[in-house]
Amino acid sequence: MDLSEYNHCINVRVRTFEVDSQGIVHNINYFKYLEIGRVEYRRNLGYTILPSGIFNDGLKVVVVHNEIDYRSFAYLDDLLNICTKIAWIKNSSFCFEQIIENKITGSIICEGKGILVNINKMNEPQSFGQKFIDEIKTFEKDLIIK
Amino acid sequence: MDLSEYNHCINVRVRTFEVDSQGIVHNINYFKYLEIGRVEYRRNLGYTILPSGIFNDGLKVVVVHNEIDYRSFAYLDDLLNICTKIAWIKNSSFCFEQIIENKITGSIICEGKGILVNINKMNEPQSFGQKFIDEIKTFEKDLIIK
Amino acid sequence: MDLSEYNHCINVRVRTFEVDSQGIVHNINYFKYLEIGRVEYRRNLGYTILPSGIFNDGLKVVVVHNEIDYRSFAYLDDLLNICTKIAWIKNSSFCFEQIIENKITGSIICEGKGILVNINKMNEPQSFGQKFIDEIKTFEKDLIIK
Amino acid sequence: MDLSEYNHCINVRVRTFEVDSQGIVHNINYFKYLEIGRVEYRRNLGYTILPSGIFNDGLKVVVVHNEIDYRSFAYLDDLLNICTKIAWIKNSSFCFEQIIENKITGSIICEGKGILVNINKMNEPQSFGQKFIDEIKTFEKDLIIK
Repeated sequence: MDLSEYNHCINVRVRTFEVDSQGIVHNINYFKYLEIGRVEYRRNLGYTILPSGIFNDGLKVVVVHNEIDYRSFAYLDDLLNICTKIAWIKNSSFCFEQIIENKITGSIICEGKGILVNINKMNEPQSFGQKFIDEIKTFEKDLIIK
Repeated sequence: MDLSEYNHCINVRVRTFEVDSQGIVHNINYFKYLEIGRVEYRRNLGYTILPSGIFNDGLKVVVVHNEIDYRSFAYLDDLLNICTKIAWIKNSSFCFEQIIENKITGSIICEGKGILVNINKMNEPQSFGQKFIDEIKTFEKDLIIK
Repeated sequence: MDLSEYNHCINVRVRTFEVDSQGIVHNINYFKYLEIGRVEYRRNLGYTILPSGIFNDGLKVVVVHNEIDYRSFAYLDDLLNICTKIAWIKNSSFCFEQIIENKITGSIICEGKGILVNINKMNEPQSFGQKFIDEIKTFEKDLIIK
Repeated sequence: MDLSEYNHCINVRVRTFEVDSQGIVHNINYFKYLEIGRVEYRRNLGYTILPSGIFNDGLKVVVVHNEIDYRSFAYLDDLLNICTKIAWIKNSSFCFEQIIENKITGSIICEGKGILVNINKMNEPQSFGQKFIDEIKTFEKDLIIK
């Protein structure tokens, strides 16, 4: 769990409608922060998501696996640092690994992982183009190509 | 504020991800309960909403006004009674009036109102058909036709 | 509807989990943007909200009325400008007036209003101190004191 | 993945504010359905969750791990069947295993897992009492005690 391995981080503020009756971010809402991190990761590479949910280079991905290990609590109004990398790529899928830390204290809030599959218009898995793979390889020096 | 004027009520349970740090339903989430009441109101008249967000009789409506007056608090795990009526219809719009009460204690939690406009495929206002108006008139004896 | 009357604006990006099946921000989620604007308005005056939901100067407010008039649609990934002012103050309540515009096109998305009441530890209305009123008066040149 | 192993199922309807721009339930919202299933699982054993987020037998649990494998899509207005079991118990933690199926078609939408830890008032892990373990053992014939 080394934040120096992450080339992409963004900040998110915890909002009133995201904490539960214990004053802590509800466990589900951390997935929202991870999702924001994933979209911003792609924006950082020059792509934006269209109203249809497809990216402007035609990339259409669906999430097939999502998980979080919770380490400590985030509280209302905390400023969080969401760090995102792509750990591996296969033929038609790739894996986001993410860490959320408290931006001020540096304590690790949780670690997340998401596996996404590239699909075509018939919702069938489709190989990534070489351009996509090359871009990720350039950005992530430790990328594993499975 | 007379619940006997309401011919359509459904029950909703307050969930863990809907309360805030004061243990009270976050003010925004009552709008979710109102929205559920509105869709179920139409189901009760025989119509269902399709994945596109359009009802299966072709009705496509957008909300142009939404409001809530909050009277008392709802808490985690409370069982709520969401009562919905259509108070008036105009050429291409109508108004939902709604009350949320605590199902067990009978105390009024809030009163809501939503004005919806019927739109065509170009997102322009479109007159309701007579069938729609007749159905509401049959269901709501005090309906005002503006 | 003159944005030049607003001394406080912040930007919010529309996220994937905030749009509905029509690719448009779900009508309820605009209330989230208004809520963010309200908390940031107070931060701009030097106060932060604590995990308990109470501000760090002891201010504890509850929303007694909330409304939105929807003017046009916001879409996935749109950058929005949330402008917030306090229009009037009474003994123990005040009114936020807010406008959301598309930051890029300048088109008005919606107008919102929220009335909040200051409460004490027994959840009873409580007069604002003079300090609170003076601060708002200094910030809002057109403030109405009712 | 055998639904006959599940002694607790509840139904949930997909709502307008839970689907994304592709008309499909947003991947995060399935975690809400799992959370509802978990609270109802405990209600079925005779316990209710209090406004504080603690159950009325004093049980206070936090989620330390959450995951979902997505199998197919759920759409707006689908009626879902949320099936929940406790697969194993350790000293101070236990694991929910859950399946969401489309109630009408029977197709599996996703499989989820959550590990929860029992904590005391200082937020430290605390052993379950024998009563808790016996109740689960009675309800789940295949329970693994680690």
